Amino acid sequence: WTTAVSVIKCRAAVAWEPSKPLVMEEIEVAPPQAHEIRIKIVATGVCHTDLYHLFEGKHKDGFPCVLGHEGAGIVESVGSEVTKFNPGDKVIPLFISQCGQCRFCKSPKTNLCEKGWYDVMSESDTRFTCKGKKVLQFMGTSTFSEYTVVNEIAVAKIHPSAPLDKVCLLGCGVATGYGAALNTAKVEPGSTCAVFGLGAVGLAAVMGCKNAGAKRIIAIDINPTKYEKAKVFGATEFVNPKDHNKPISQVLHEMTNGGVDFSLECVGSVARSALESCVKGWGVSVLVGWTDMDDFAARPIQLIAGRTWKGSLFGGFKSKDGVPKLVNEYLEKKVKLDEFVTHNMTLAQVNDAIQLMQTGDCIRSVLSVALQ
Amino acid sequence: WTTAVSVIKCRAAVAWEPSKPLVMEEIEVAPPQAHEIRIKIVATGVCHTDLYHLFEGKHKDGFPCVLGHEGAGIVESVGSEVTKFNPGDKVIPLFISQCGQCRFCKSPKTNLCEKGWYDVMSESDTRFTCKGKKVLQFMGTSTFSEYTVVNEIAVAKIHPSAPLDKVCLLGCGVATGYGAALNTAKVEPGSTCAVFGLGAVGLAAVMGCKNAGAKRIIAIDINPTKYEKAKVFGATEFVNPKDHNKPISQVLHEMTNGGVDFSLECVGSVARSALESCVKGWGVSVLVGWTDMDDFAARPIQLIAGRTWKGSLFGGFKSKDGVPKLVNEYLEKKVKLDEFVTHNMTLAQVNDAIQLMQTGDCIRSVLSVALQ
Ligand SMILES: NC(=O)c1ccc[n+]([C@@H]2O[C@H](COP(=O)([O-])OP(=O)(O)OC[C@H]3O[C@@H](n4cnc5c(N)ncnc54)[C@H](O)[C@@H]3O)[C@@H](O)[C@H]2O)c1
Ligand SMILES: NC(=O)c1ccc[n+]([C@@H]2O[C@H](COP(=O)([O-])OP(=O)(O)OC[C@H]3O[C@@H](n4cnc5c(N)ncnc54)[C@H](O)[C@@H]3O)[C@@H](O)[C@H]2O)c1
Ligand SMILES: [Zn+2]
Ligand SMILES: [Zn+2]
Ligand SMILES: [Zn+2]
Ligand SMILES: [Zn+2]
Repeated sequence: WTTAVSVIKCRAAVAWEPSKPLVMEEIEVAPPQAHEIRIKIVATGVCHTDLYHLFEGKHKDGFPCVLGHEGAGIVESVGSEVTKFNPGDKVIPLFISQCGQCRFCKSPKTNLCEKGWYDVMSESDTRFTCKGKKVLQFMGTSTFSEYTVVNEIAVAKIHPSAPLDKVCLLGCGVATGYGAALNTAKVEPGSTCAVFGLGAVGLAAVMGCKNAGAKRIIAIDINPTKYEKAKVFGATEFVNPKDHNKPISQVLHEMTNGGVDFSLECVGSVARSALESCVKGWGVSVLVGWTDMDDFAARPIQLIAGRTWKGSLFGGFKSKDGVPKLVNEYLEKKVKLDEFVTHNMTLAQVNDAIQLMQTGDCIRSVLSVALQ
Repeated sequence: WTTAVSVIKCRAAVAWEPSKPLVMEEIEVAPPQAHEIRIKIVATGVCHTDLYHLFEGKHKDGFPCVLGHEGAGIVESVGSEVTKFNPGDKVIPLFISQCGQCRFCKSPKTNLCEKGWYDVMSESDTRFTCKGKKVLQFMGTSTFSEYTVVNEIAVAKIHPSAPLDKVCLLGCGVATGYGAALNTAKVEPGSTCAVFGLGAVGLAAVMGCKNAGAKRIIAIDINPTKYEKAKVFGATEFVNPKDHNKPISQVLHEMTNGGVDFSLECVGSVARSALESCVKGWGVSVLVGWTDMDDFAARPIQLIAGRTWKGSLFGGFKSKDGVPKLVNEYLEKKVKLDEFVTHNMTLAQVNDAIQLMQTGDCIRSVLSVALQ
């Protein structure tokens, strides 16, 4: 294997402090240590979770940092002990690890890994410095940088012909929504589904419902410009909560003779509505959105009457196993990705991409980062 | 078949108004109409839900009524169209119907029935009068009466040798807790379980965990006099939240290396603790207790990290199918019932039984009602 020794100087978008625009800076990226991989990031999406950390994160300690966790790139060099990756491999960095050894990895029931899922790596774990200061890595990945260093338990090697400016979306949003429908809700053929929120996560959930064989897929968003895209992914009906002066759960009960079989909450603030929209007896509601850190709540009867409330992180996919398979499904045209990309920009335009997401005028902006 | 024509005059404990002692009265019980069965109640348990209606029910309309929904008896007469029951059959009245025809009854996923589960029957449905006034039937059953009338979709015919003063407990509490573990949580062999609340419902949940093959069953109650009974049903460890000055979920995390596989909430006010006590990744928490009508709540991360929140009504048993099977399991000594009965009294002593439950000095009081 190649043991990299040199520090790389490259461009990155640094978040110096909360709620401020990111600043393009030259940073230093240390060589990968044992079991680590240094990756040249070719493309990255911008996900709501990046915005959450920037604008609403309660960790003031989490700065300065490099955001971004939905990227794809090419292995530049590997640290000692790394045997399964080589320079030139196409890879997707993962914000959930899969060590393969822990009790979670060994269980088929979960995609968590005891090695941890982290908001921000600790100072000793980051390989970034800028102007003499440690710069933290966000979600263990930090894809808003030309180069990043990730532990091998959090890197997926993907098909060499995968277009990185598309499959980067499998690093978070699309895998999350798609898997929430397939792996967590386990949507059944012929069923009726409701998807709340039609960002990339929600649209991917719509695609998951469709691929699972759902008969009716009701797409719900307060922004009606999203419906056209939802149709492309398989939605059969559209509801704008703002068009009704009764609770959206009541609207759905009326449309579906008592509620939907599966609901997917891809907003982050309507967990109760999503649960209440389910039919009693067997309705399953999956919480995916996660904008709101406050409590969610419901009446006991909602569960006692037979509803199930679940949650999903990264769509329930075991990360290293799942992402390469999803890439293959894209190459076989079973999974759509191109349709999520509404804007192509460069990393230098990241603040524009953030603004587009804030105003709801995009699904996904994909930023080109380093030249391939 | 026998078509009964005469009104029966008999003794019943009438709840004239909320929070007042029940009054033994002579009531009139009308003959069963089409599809109805008039039952001589031989024995009845007193369940927390009776107390709830009496003391905390928000339906002021629900009075006067006859409480009781955990009874067993003998068919006295049947209305027209009733073909599957005959006078003399041993039966258990059911507060959940099983019509066999609706979409819920036809689905293996639920024990609900579209024909409804009702707190209090409507005035036109009750067959009781007292002193010239309509007296309502509680939960469609009203077992605190020597005679009651129930629709055939809510009556289970049971084994002729079943002792009614024991199997009456299968009409609610024991079926509820036992099934919550087996049918709703689907407790797995070798798993670690926590049961919150060691009334009849919780003890039956302990028994369910044990019969499912759980390795560790942690029994939790603020009343330590309950632990001895819990041991009889299979609990392996005992925790009193009052002995700790940290949250009970933290105590359980420390005892179990990160949380239990299954938790059963059989109190009605500790839903959050029960969820938080589960291990991330695959923990399942089942809400059974239902004392509190207010919202239950938790942090989104609790579900996002892979926990599942469910609820259980009557233990998930399809009522007409499940109860006769449970009776047989009792006769085959697979299910314990005798151990739940701490007090035997008569219907006339119902107010004493209510007080014993309020003070926590009983598991189940069984009242003998009509002579067999
Ligand atoms: N669980 C996970 O693993 C995971 C991973 C990634 C993202 N997320 C979360 O998923 C959520 C969605 O992410 P995204 O990138 O698609 O965000 P997004 O901002 O692109 O999409 C959110 C959509 O919700 C709509 N919306 C807002 N309020 C609504 C309401 N009251 N009713 C219906 N629709 C409403 C918005 O108009 C928008 O279209 C975010 O909360 C994000 O943090 C979770
Ligand atoms: N879902 C259903 O179908 C169904 C059916 C019957 C009863 N229930 C409900 O189940 C619950 C239990 O019924 P029961 O008849 O066994 O009642 P019970 O009063 O006999 O038992 C409740 C137990 O909980 C204990 N307890 C109280 N506060 C506690 C706390 N903070 N932590 C731990 N333990 C605590 C009490 O000491 C008592 O032992 C009630 O809420 C009842 O309404 C639900
Ligand atoms: Zn692991
Ligand atoms: Zn994301
Ligand atoms: Zn009961
Ligand atoms: Zn039915």
